[in-house]
Amino acid sequence: MLRNSSSKLIPQSAAAVRAFSSTVIAKRTESDAFGEIEVPDEKYWGAQTQRSSQNFKIGGVRERMPEPVVRAFGTLKQATAIVNKDLGVLDPKLSDAIQQAATEVAEGKLIDHFPLVVFQTGSGTQSNMNANEVISNRAIEILGGKLGSKKPVHPNDHVNMSQSSNDTFPTVMHIAAVTEITNSLIPELTKLRDSFQAKSEEFKDIIKIGRTHLQDATPLTLGQEFSGYVQQLTNGISRVEKSLESLRFLAQGGTAVGTGLNTKKGFAEKVAEEVTRLTGLQFYTAPNKFEALAAHDAIVEASGALNVVATSLFKIANDIRYLGSGPRCGYGELSLPANEPGSSIMPGKVNPTQNEAVTMLCTQVFGNHSTITFAGASGQFELNVFKPVMISNLLSSVRLLADGANSFRLHCVDGIEANPDRINQLLHESLMLVTALNPKIGYDSASKVAKNAHAKGLTLKQSALELGVLSEEEFDQWVRPENMIGPK
Amino acid sequence: MLRNSSSKLIPQSAAAVRAFSSTVIAKRTESDAFGEIEVPDEKYWGAQTQRSSQNFKIGGVRERMPEPVVRAFGTLKQATAIVNKDLGVLDPKLSDAIQQAATEVAEGKLIDHFPLVVFQTGSGTQSNMNANEVISNRAIEILGGKLGSKKPVHPNDHVNMSQSSNDTFPTVMHIAAVTEITNSLIPELTKLRDSFQAKSEEFKDIIKIGRTHLQDATPLTLGQEFSGYVQQLTNGISRVEKSLESLRFLAQGGTAVGTGLNTKKGFAEKVAEEVTRLTGLQFYTAPNKFEALAAHDAIVEASGALNVVATSLFKIANDIRYLGSGPRCGYGELSLPANEPGSSIMPGKVNPTQNEAVTMLCTQVFGNHSTITFAGASGQFELNVFKPVMISNLLSSVRLLADGANSFRLHCVDGIEANPDRINQLLHESLMLVTALNPKIGYDSASKVAKNAHAKGLTLKQSALELGVLSEEEFDQWVRPENMIGPK
Amino acid sequence: MLRNSSSKLIPQSAAAVRAFSSTVIAKRTESDAFGEIEVPDEKYWGAQTQRSSQNFKIGGVRERMPEPVVRAFGTLKQATAIVNKDLGVLDPKLSDAIQQAATEVAEGKLIDHFPLVVFQTGSGTQSNMNANEVISNRAIEILGGKLGSKKPVHPNDHVNMSQSSNDTFPTVMHIAAVTEITNSLIPELTKLRDSFQAKSEEFKDIIKIGRTHLQDATPLTLGQEFSGYVQQLTNGISRVEKSLESLRFLAQGGTAVGTGLNTKKGFAEKVAEEVTRLTGLQFYTAPNKFEALAAHDAIVEASGALNVVATSLFKIANDIRYLGSGPRCGYGELSLPANEPGSSIMPGKVNPTQNEAVTMLCTQVFGNHSTITFAGASGQFELNVFKPVMISNLLSSVRLLADGANSFRLHCVDGIEANPDRINQLLHESLMLVTALNPKIGYDSASKVAKNAHAKGLTLKQSALELGVLSEEEFDQWVRPENMIGPK
Amino acid sequence: MLRNSSSKLIPQSAAAVRAFSSTVIAKRTESDAFGEIEVPDEKYWGAQTQRSSQNFKIGGVRERMPEPVVRAFGTLKQATAIVNKDLGVLDPKLSDAIQQAATEVAEGKLIDHFPLVVFQTGSGTQSNMNANEVISNRAIEILGGKLGSKKPVHPNDHVNMSQSSNDTFPTVMHIAAVTEITNSLIPELTKLRDSFQAKSEEFKDIIKIGRTHLQDATPLTLGQEFSGYVQQLTNGISRVEKSLESLRFLAQGGTAVGTGLNTKKGFAEKVAEEVTRLTGLQFYTAPNKFEALAAHDAIVEASGALNVVATSLFKIANDIRYLGSGPRCGYGELSLPANEPGSSIMPGKVNPTQNEAVTMLCTQVFGNHSTITFAGASGQFELNVFKPVMISNLLSSVRLLADGANSFRLHCVDGIEANPDRINQLLHESLMLVTALNPKIGYDSASKVAKNAHAKGLTLKQSALELGVLSEEEFDQWVRPENMIGPK
Repeated sequence: MLRNSSSKLIPQSAAAVRAFSSTVIAKRTESDAFGEIEVPDEKYWGAQTQRSSQNFKIGGVRERMPEPVVRAFGTLKQATAIVNKDLGVLDPKLSDAIQQAATEVAEGKLIDHFPLVVFQTGSGTQSNMNANEVISNRAIEILGGKLGSKKPVHPNDHVNMSQSSNDTFPTVMHIAAVTEITNSLIPELTKLRDSFQAKSEEFKDIIKIGRTHLQDATPLTLGQEFSGYVQQLTNGISRVEKSLESLRFLAQGGTAVGTGLNTKKGFAEKVAEEVTRLTGLQFYTAPNKFEALAAHDAIVEASGALNVVATSLFKIANDIRYLGSGPRCGYGELSLPANEPGSSIMPGKVNPTQNEAVTMLCTQVFGNHSTITFAGASGQFELNVFKPVMISNLLSSVRLLADGANSFRLHCVDGIEANPDRINQLLHESLMLVTALNPKIGYDSASKVAKNAHAKGLTLKQSALELGVLSEEEFDQWVRPENMIGPK
Repeated sequence: MLRNSSSKLIPQSAAAVRAFSSTVIAKRTESDAFGEIEVPDEKYWGAQTQRSSQNFKIGGVRERMPEPVVRAFGTLKQATAIVNKDLGVLDPKLSDAIQQAATEVAEGKLIDHFPLVVFQTGSGTQSNMNANEVISNRAIEILGGKLGSKKPVHPNDHVNMSQSSNDTFPTVMHIAAVTEITNSLIPELTKLRDSFQAKSEEFKDIIKIGRTHLQDATPLTLGQEFSGYVQQLTNGISRVEKSLESLRFLAQGGTAVGTGLNTKKGFAEKVAEEVTRLTGLQFYTAPNKFEALAAHDAIVEASGALNVVATSLFKIANDIRYLGSGPRCGYGELSLPANEPGSSIMPGKVNPTQNEAVTMLCTQVFGNHSTITFAGASGQFELNVFKPVMISNLLSSVRLLADGANSFRLHCVDGIEANPDRINQLLHESLMLVTALNPKIGYDSASKVAKNAHAKGLTLKQSALELGVLSEEEFDQWVRPENMIGPK
Repeated sequence: MLRNSSSKLIPQSAAAVRAFSSTVIAKRTESDAFGEIEVPDEKYWGAQTQRSSQNFKIGGVRERMPEPVVRAFGTLKQATAIVNKDLGVLDPKLSDAIQQAATEVAEGKLIDHFPLVVFQTGSGTQSNMNANEVISNRAIEILGGKLGSKKPVHPNDHVNMSQSSNDTFPTVMHIAAVTEITNSLIPELTKLRDSFQAKSEEFKDIIKIGRTHLQDATPLTLGQEFSGYVQQLTNGISRVEKSLESLRFLAQGGTAVGTGLNTKKGFAEKVAEEVTRLTGLQFYTAPNKFEALAAHDAIVEASGALNVVATSLFKIANDIRYLGSGPRCGYGELSLPANEPGSSIMPGKVNPTQNEAVTMLCTQVFGNHSTITFAGASGQFELNVFKPVMISNLLSSVRLLADGANSFRLHCVDGIEANPDRINQLLHESLMLVTALNPKIGYDSASKVAKNAHAKGLTLKQSALELGVLSEEEFDQWVRPENMIGPK
Repeated sequence: MLRNSSSKLIPQSAAAVRAFSSTVIAKRTESDAFGEIEVPDEKYWGAQTQRSSQNFKIGGVRERMPEPVVRAFGTLKQATAIVNKDLGVLDPKLSDAIQQAATEVAEGKLIDHFPLVVFQTGSGTQSNMNANEVISNRAIEILGGKLGSKKPVHPNDHVNMSQSSNDTFPTVMHIAAVTEITNSLIPELTKLRDSFQAKSEEFKDIIKIGRTHLQDATPLTLGQEFSGYVQQLTNGISRVEKSLESLRFLAQGGTAVGTGLNTKKGFAEKVAEEVTRLTGLQFYTAPNKFEALAAHDAIVEASGALNVVATSLFKIANDIRYLGSGPRCGYGELSLPANEPGSSIMPGKVNPTQNEAVTMLCTQVFGNHSTITFAGASGQFELNVFKPVMISNLLSSVRLLADGANSFRLHCVDGIEANPDRINQLLHESLMLVTALNPKIGYDSASKVAKNAHAKGLTLKQSALELGVLSEEEFDQWVRPENMIGPK
């Protein structure tokens, strides 16, 4: 997806760039248990990464392992290098070099060295090995060694020390999820909620007709209507926060099947502490590592919280585009910001495009949730091997909701304006103000007033007087929208 | 001659009952704003219920409004009758009769008078009116009046006093959901968890081979394996309990659009208190009634929690049936209870039928969750009109999971037995005990030992000795399954 | 769900009825490979049915095996009895009695003898045995034997002759699906399509404003708008019909694993012919029985077709309720039939309740499709053991769509009326007629006219003249809605 | 020092490229109805593309409009330029330049000039304008004009002539879908099917135990088992082909709302012909353009077909990994190719990684289908504004299935080997060969033989003889696996 074309006339396609590069690219030999294999000399990755990139040509760059996962591997490998040193099993010099290399991964500086796609081994083993290989080669480089020599820093024996893919990958799933949710999604949802809160206050005195079943109903204020959105988002933020609880537990220390074979006692706890320190976010070691490897219920749970947020946003964005529909032939109660020309054929048309982007991305979140649910149910024995697709979809949902909340707020919500004239006109044309008469003349009589008005095109007052159920003074006293927007 | 039409004891088929009844059934006239209509004299329902049953012939008895919703209407109408009396707006005599009638609804005694299906008005208005009509007629009867006269108890003016379908239906959704989850689902999940806990302890000394990627892996105890299930269920119970928090908030008091029009101040709070008292379960009035009518995010959230539980149960039930596969050509590590003949053609076959029922019902829960998500996103303005389908699917998931947990526990989990001989045989055939050699001879050498054994059909020890990487004494000392089931 | 209460004051709950009955009910002893068990003497079912009803208390009557499946078992057992007789392996006298009993099952007369729920053995074995037991006992009765004696008609050896649950259940899945789709769904969809077609013609001269992005757009006729619905339904019918192709293939003859063990050559083909003759619907024997038992892709495919129909109906029903929104504060272009009072608090309110029922049931179909997809993917080796939940959900979707199409047509579509005054008013207020000027004055100038009108609240003509981009005559000649509803 | 910032050969990270570029990049001014805006001078895009890229920062490069959509725009704009010239409304010189530029888009040469993401305007308007802008600027360049001048080639008046986003975007959706399905998915599925067919033939004489309910069942050949997969794929290909029927209909000619305003009669038909000619794939003009703009049922239908294929592949890939489970503690009937080291901690472990990638991508397809269903149901009035998310998900499913089929075939299926010794051993240990005795000694007796063998750990023969139900000769004659793999 990266395009480095400089020509403005004959820009090269990605394929062309790759094709060209491949003809001149320098290679070195790396090896693993399967033997030797050539890798591009300009990359830090080793044999297993290379093998995976050849064996899993599925989906292309669009399906690369998401960057937050790569960064979390950096954080985790930094943490394990520290703990292994502290536990006396890893040479301090190697630990330092590993830490430095891992930090570069955590900071995203080596993202180009992580070419693998989501649709690989279901344990994410190859992405773990990608991290091990990149970090070991970079550490070797730092220590003045030869790339591919595995000396003095071996990807398995040192970078992966006391670890297995089976516990590292679920650990980075949780680190990545907590990080993105905490640092990106919750702040954006909060800002969106606050934006709606401000609008709710701005609109608190605008009385409008309510609509239930899409039919005219009793009045409320536009501020009250928006307060419902505020409540949905407030609850949504709380739901997402609650789902973080399960995500804070890390699988690290379970190694291959959850027993913690080949770790030292205390390793698991210390890694969780170190990750907490490095990220500034609270993590704990999982109380049961068998569950933490074999199931990803915490991911399904988190996705479920995002799913609720998406239902909220879908409803809100949909309402607002209908309330802004028109300009002449719709509801027309709101004016939405005009950000771009709306039609390539209809001049002057402005569309609720932010709402469209938001509702679209909500459907993506719903689909991602289906994927995550299916994958989450499909663990087998000691391992769930749908890890990459689960975290990829979760991070997709997190990012889309965060980006969408940001875009919706900046380019729509903050700029929403009420159209008081239109709102007032509709309010007074409505027949449902008749509800105010229920306690006065009874439901059945009130019903007749409304039906008579509807049938003859009368106002409510005209109808009520025609039917002789009350006096004009009574009507004016009893039917007041401003008295209909709360309990007595 | 057919037994089912002659039997003295057995109830006749629905069709037969209906066919017969329709010829002789006594009728009375009821009326509503649309005019008069005949209803069966033996039923308490009135004109609107009758109309709905004629206008919505969708799905048949299978799609009737679930009984917990009907019962919750009884509870709610009882509560509102009390509060309206306390607030001085409802005649105490009428209130008492309404309370008595409503109690009968709450106890399920009048379930035959609630014929309406889920696929009706999306606000559940007609089920609210069904409750109003049944309770008013039953109260009229108690007070010695004439059914259908609406005197002295009017379905709208008295039973529905201070209420709207738009706040009663979401209120009973929450009452029904909290009741069923608290009284049925959580106890059943807890018992299932405890059953697995007991098995985990029973199996704590049985060392077995682990399996990751379905491939032989390092060992663990069968008790450890089952402890993962215990953790999943413990977390699941906690997730369901967390989802109750949102469900405890009641919409009552919002009336038509959330403003609380036609209620007295304090009505909302008092109803929540009264429902709490009547059910013995904690409820609060919703902080924002606009949200409570227009969205059902709390239902989507609760369904999301059930969805996680279903992913857990699917995984657990699936694992156990594979571990019990055989008897001769599968994993064969567990023996599951034989509850019934398994095959109509293969004599002596016994199948993991409880696991099949459980995994099937999990897929139903997944589908129900999709329905609820879609419906929950589809609210419009002041009202979500997918209420009946949402609560119907939620209660379906609750019941299936509760019944399934109970059936699975009684007819499978409690009776699971380990097959120690088989388990032990597999353990010692495995090559993955080689992992114990990692810290001794390094990953690459250990890998060669395993591969050599696999290629030549050797045991690990034979292979290691053949390759000369260690002595027999070292092997026996280092490769001990009992030392591989935890950190050092 | 069947309620036979006669009292109008103290109607008994279903549970009470059952509790009472159970105290006096006569019993007889039946037996199977697991031993003896008591069954209600008034029922034809035997030991395995009784065992299943005790082992699978999941979901209650709401989750009973759908009646079309039971009826299809009747058809199938009739067909196999004929074929087995023709092949000379079944005594003609037994065959005749089996046929008579099976016919009664096919006609639904013995539905009360099929108590089992969906959440049982995943192969539907117990429902197959339920059919075998009921038919054998009924045949024994016909032949003057003793119920439970298995003589002269044995449920396995005679009624299930040449069959296995593993091929009978998938066979009845297909028979039931083809029957319900052909006899119920397609006719109802066709009638709904025709109703829309009639409306499309009725409205062919009513020019209205179009709406894209919910914003005013160029005009079209109301008839054209409805023609889109007609096309969706026409395509939907075609999609459903295409999906029948796969369903017409029957698994019968595969027996336990697909090989056809214990059948005679030709059995499979003859059964398909016989089922075709009995039902009047075309069936074929499946070309590969391994696929037919181990996968139910045909069910997933059919559900996918129903899923498309549901997306169509959701869109159509949603559009129509918005077009009918109001009566004073919405789009108001259509009047929908008023079938019942709409609100328990707002007198005179009439709601688009049929549309709500339809959109709700569409969400159920979407959820059912998720369930079916998940279950369909979960087959294992020679058998998919999610059969009951798959067919139950498919038949639910079929019935809901058929009933919904019928209800929607009768109670909504047939009665839709256009509101020409409102439509005409909106048309002429719209700014998007400006599109007619594109070819005359260019997109950019036309855009300015529209924007100027919008900003100043002018009509298009006023704006155009103010901007001096054309003359009044040109405007009147160029901007004619009737010239904007088709190509030139 | 970091390699990725110093390398002479490697493209820099996206962030680095962007950071660097932004400081020195040359700009030019473009304009639209909203005014002037600066764009990078090295890019062909114009004001509306630039505006969109600023207004929709949602999802990043991972969410860019898929390349097949961009290419299809090239094809379409080429076709419309030809037709407009033929109809005499477009200057031949301009047409030629547009055609040349459009061809470059169709060939993917200008992919770097299409930066917009999926989550934009729901009609895809901005991607249509992106195409219009790039093609007009490139055509201007070809004709020696000045980029951004809109002369002599205007993006709306010339490139978009006779078109609207509302008909072009659905048209390119169908062109892209038909192209990718025809040229990529179907060939890959066919090759996979053929690979399974070859294996089915290779394994036709290997008799193995069948498994139903995961329990040992009657035998079949391994070839028969694989023939089920072949049938599933054969049906899947047919399903996908059937779904192409609806996709072959193009919306082009409907313009803004489906009426074809501002097109000439015949335009729609001629464009479909021209697209057919250019692509070599059959397309037709849609019979009803209102449906073609307002609904995307054809996309939902196609996704439904892919959904069935995914259920098939999930089942197949899952079966094969279980059959290959082991090597010592699983089923072990198959050996799967070892493509890479399997574990970072367990030496010598080889995992069914291709199967894991395939099953993961199937869950993605299921989720994509949910998204498409939800989005497809959400059209409003004359337009569905979920177009980009629908086609993006459909193309994702197509690509994943195609890539996955290819990878699975090359790296797994082609290399599957049977383990005849293991298969034979399991076959003869099984008890379910007892089924062969059903017709000889009856179901009940056969059942006793099997149960007795199971209880006492006997072989079937030992058990039968012990029970005295037949002679050794009879057993040897009757129980022959080779006689159990078909009808008699």
